[in-house]
Amino acid sequence: MTRSLLPEVAETEDGNRRSSSGATAMRLIVPLQGVVQGRGGLLLGSLIPCALFYFLQLYLKRDRSKNSSNPPSPSASSSNLMELSRSSSRSNLTTRGSIGRVRVSSLASDIAKPDESPYYIGLDRASKDPYDRLNNPDGIVQLGLSDNTLCLDLIEKWMSVNLKESLLGTDDVTLSMNGIAAYQPFDGLEELKVAMSNLMSQAMGGSTKFDPSNIVLTCGATPAIEILTFCLADHGNALLVPTPYYPGFDRDVKFRTGVDIIPVHCRSTDNFTLSIIALEQAYSQARKRGVKVRGILLCNPSNPVGNLLSQDTLYGLLDFAQEKNIHIISDELYAGSTYGSEKFVSLAEILDSEYIDKSRVHIIYGLSKDLALPAFRVGAIYSFNESVLAAAKKLTRFCSVSAPTQRLVTSMLSDERFIQEYLGTNLKRIRELHEEFEAGLNKLGIKCAKSSAGLYCWADMSGLIRPYSERGELDLWKKFLSISKINITPGSACHCIEPGWFRICFTTLTLEDIPLIIERFRRVVETCESSG
Amino acid sequence: MTRSLLPEVAETEDGNRRSSSGATAMRLIVPLQGVVQGRGGLLLGSLIPCALFYFLQLYLKRDRSKNSSNPPSPSASSSNLMELSRSSSRSNLTTRGSIGRVRVSSLASDIAKPDESPYYIGLDRASKDPYDRLNNPDGIVQLGLSDNTLCLDLIEKWMSVNLKESLLGTDDVTLSMNGIAAYQPFDGLEELKVAMSNLMSQAMGGSTKFDPSNIVLTCGATPAIEILTFCLADHGNALLVPTPYYPGFDRDVKFRTGVDIIPVHCRSTDNFTLSIIALEQAYSQARKRGVKVRGILLCNPSNPVGNLLSQDTLYGLLDFAQEKNIHIISDELYAGSTYGSEKFVSLAEILDSEYIDKSRVHIIYGLSKDLALPAFRVGAIYSFNESVLAAAKKLTRFCSVSAPTQRLVTSMLSDERFIQEYLGTNLKRIRELHEEFEAGLNKLGIKCAKSSAGLYCWADMSGLIRPYSERGELDLWKKFLSISKINITPGSACHCIEPGWFRICFTTLTLEDIPLIIERFRRVVETCESSG
Repeated sequence: MTRSLLPEVAETEDGNRRSSSGATAMRLIVPLQGVVQGRGGLLLGSLIPCALFYFLQLYLKRDRSKNSSNPPSPSASSSNLMELSRSSSRSNLTTRGSIGRVRVSSLASDIAKPDESPYYIGLDRASKDPYDRLNNPDGIVQLGLSDNTLCLDLIEKWMSVNLKESLLGTDDVTLSMNGIAAYQPFDGLEELKVAMSNLMSQAMGGSTKFDPSNIVLTCGATPAIEILTFCLADHGNALLVPTPYYPGFDRDVKFRTGVDIIPVHCRSTDNFTLSIIALEQAYSQARKRGVKVRGILLCNPSNPVGNLLSQDTLYGLLDFAQEKNIHIISDELYAGSTYGSEKFVSLAEILDSEYIDKSRVHIIYGLSKDLALPAFRVGAIYSFNESVLAAAKKLTRFCSVSAPTQRLVTSMLSDERFIQEYLGTNLKRIRELHEEFEAGLNKLGIKCAKSSAGLYCWADMSGLIRPYSERGELDLWKKFLSISKINITPGSACHCIEPGWFRICFTTLTLEDIPLIIERFRRVVETCESSG
Repeated sequence: MTRSLLPEVAETEDGNRRSSSGATAMRLIVPLQGVVQGRGGLLLGSLIPCALFYFLQLYLKRDRSKNSSNPPSPSASSSNLMELSRSSSRSNLTTRGSIGRVRVSSLASDIAKPDESPYYIGLDRASKDPYDRLNNPDGIVQLGLSDNTLCLDLIEKWMSVNLKESLLGTDDVTLSMNGIAAYQPFDGLEELKVAMSNLMSQAMGGSTKFDPSNIVLTCGATPAIEILTFCLADHGNALLVPTPYYPGFDRDVKFRTGVDIIPVHCRSTDNFTLSIIALEQAYSQARKRGVKVRGILLCNPSNPVGNLLSQDTLYGLLDFAQEKNIHIISDELYAGSTYGSEKFVSLAEILDSEYIDKSRVHIIYGLSKDLALPAFRVGAIYSFNESVLAAAKKLTRFCSVSAPTQRLVTSMLSDERFIQEYLGTNLKRIRELHEEFEAGLNKLGIKCAKSSAGLYCWADMSGLIRPYSERGELDLWKKFLSISKINITPGSACHCIEPGWFRICFTTLTLEDIPLIIERFRRVVETCESSG
């Protein structure tokens, strides 16, 4: 009966919520009927329950839009405010018979606003005044972007030899212009899927094979994550994401899908490793709020920490996902940038060895990190789910990879000797630089989380912040920008629950740069210590 | 009071609907109170209004989801059916403790289904068994895809000379690898925006200048249209689109945005030219149904008809948009493929000459048609609206153009002599082929709509269909596929209201192919005539 009285709430999966709302209704109505009975008024007897039902609906509606499994109109109130301030400046416009400035969508008015995250503000500031040893020595050093320029020389050398051949063929074998100019399958050329699956296998240590028919190519990992979100979750659903996480996830997951992120907090005492218990807690809290969780999005190797998920944790994750009947998106973009002694284990490797329902597992890969070619815009969804593959293929009409780039990259990835040399040299150079850079930070008293992979350090500067809070952290970030002209990423931008941690990307530096950069760090450290 | 009784309906803009729903409520409640009064029962007196309110809510909810300015859960019922049939085959899977096949989103289960539109079915059939004069002479000739291979020789020649230089620089000037490999602005390189605005000006006859700072680059016109839809309309809103229209619009506009298309029917008696009266009618009908119209999406030159909008119609459109305070998206992808005697007028040209509120005007352009490089995936949004530009720039993280392609294209477009020669030769070749092809069709008694642009004929084969209906049209399309092994696009796929029209793309043919193709057409025509 409760169910039929409350049809709109019954749409949520949460049985507890449903019956407790029903109980609330009855708790309100039954005593009030008593009150009315005493005075015997039929009019009151019919009007009061009407009013009660009206307020109940109001209450449920408010409650629902808070927890919302219904699609919200994102930030409607803020967009209205924006419209307001915009139309008040309308007098500047003289238009032919205009009846007012035309409205844009809530999404557009929401995201057109200036960025508030220090991650984007920092990127922007540094890009407008970039440090250059010769031409702009007082510019801002960009350590906020996970870019890697350590092996550009190898890429350049390969391209100068192979470019023309990869795009146009040799004198003996001319490649058809049709295959580079005319329409191609939106989800990528078969040859590139084969080359990409080989690269994934190579980058992940060779112990796993990837099937090219499970691959959908996209113009970068960013649209790959968005497409998976669109395919796995409905408007108002949520994904669990362990923190600290890559600041871009907020846009990739939430911008256009209406899907929410529920952070699962990891802590410094565990070196920010994901625990299944924390996952369970976040999941059941979400359910209590009526939010439908549709999957876990994790980054392994972790960005920004650089640690790896152990085989045990991966099994735990798969059990958890199976038990809750939800998906796992495993972003393994840094798999081939594992320079530490620990071995990276792909989620795909576990699936290979165990008889598990694979249809809930989806892997993200791309060329932006391990091959350091972010501007090439080549990403991949690797999924075992037929519906997801079919839907994702259709959605690549919005994010397909340029054919000249596909040909160039197919040729590069198929050159196995080059790839092997590149991956090896890249790891060697990251390792050297990491050691040197971390040693420099250590000398200043800054310790980093234990890491084995990635293009960054996850540094603990909690000892330098006053107060010990997000505000203190942001003050320190501002000092780095203004005093030492360095942009780094504050942990709060990565939703880290403990203040004072920073991601510092070092792979656009050279060994020669390090003394200068450490010197710049020292300036801030000394300022903090003297003022402390 | 009506407003406060019905808070959820009050969210729609339709004043009529709101008050009539309130009246319905009162019409139901007042007499029933009378019934209850007669028998005096308080329990009934409180329960019946409760029940009434419950049914009223049910009614309003159903009504709302029908007219919905609220976001629908797209095809929830069909997705449930799909889940059902899928889980019934679950016994094939042995999973470790699985509690059932994991669900995908409504969007994914909806679009993962096989295509139903003859446009996509035909494309697919022809791509699986493509005609080749030497290797597969019995294959299907693809005349369903608006592709242009007439000037690939010019592109090939240019690339064989300039490729290496455009990507890597000359011996004197080395281009930095950083600029091609490391992160670049998602919305495109400045140099390419400049080159693109010059191309747009050149392709549109030189009478309009385009400002590079109004350009946002995307990986094709397809994501450009989707981004504009996201930026201009909210979930549940609609765009007016004149018919017949390019079949891809249904996916570009609707797939992920929740925005709907309202067709504005144009007719053969007007050579399928848009009339402002039809626009007014479609608009007011939409408003009556409670649908909020946020803009007009039009294709000028038209795909599939190939006609142009006159200057008068453009003024009419601007007035209409101004009066209704809505946007105009003008897809001008074929502007440089205007081979007829009529002159193409861009909407931007009108804005140049008149003092109009430009912030409602957005133009789509790209390299897929006029430069015949669809696989390069280079599209452009040209907008006068600051909020739209700011939001679109942020959304290009999901659809940015590959940097090697950007460099290649920047170099190509900056070679003004090449572009001039290319555009001229391309027009000459389209014109020749069009004349020859249309003459061939005419000899078979097939007439085409008057056209001045595009890579296709819009052919009237209504005389060949039995019955005179969409079914007759699809039967004829199937005959073309099976008897003459030709794929063309039936008008119903373009939402044409009159049966019997077909889009036939001819720019992948050569002059030598035409007799053979016309012979294949003859076979079908004769079959129809003999069976008629």
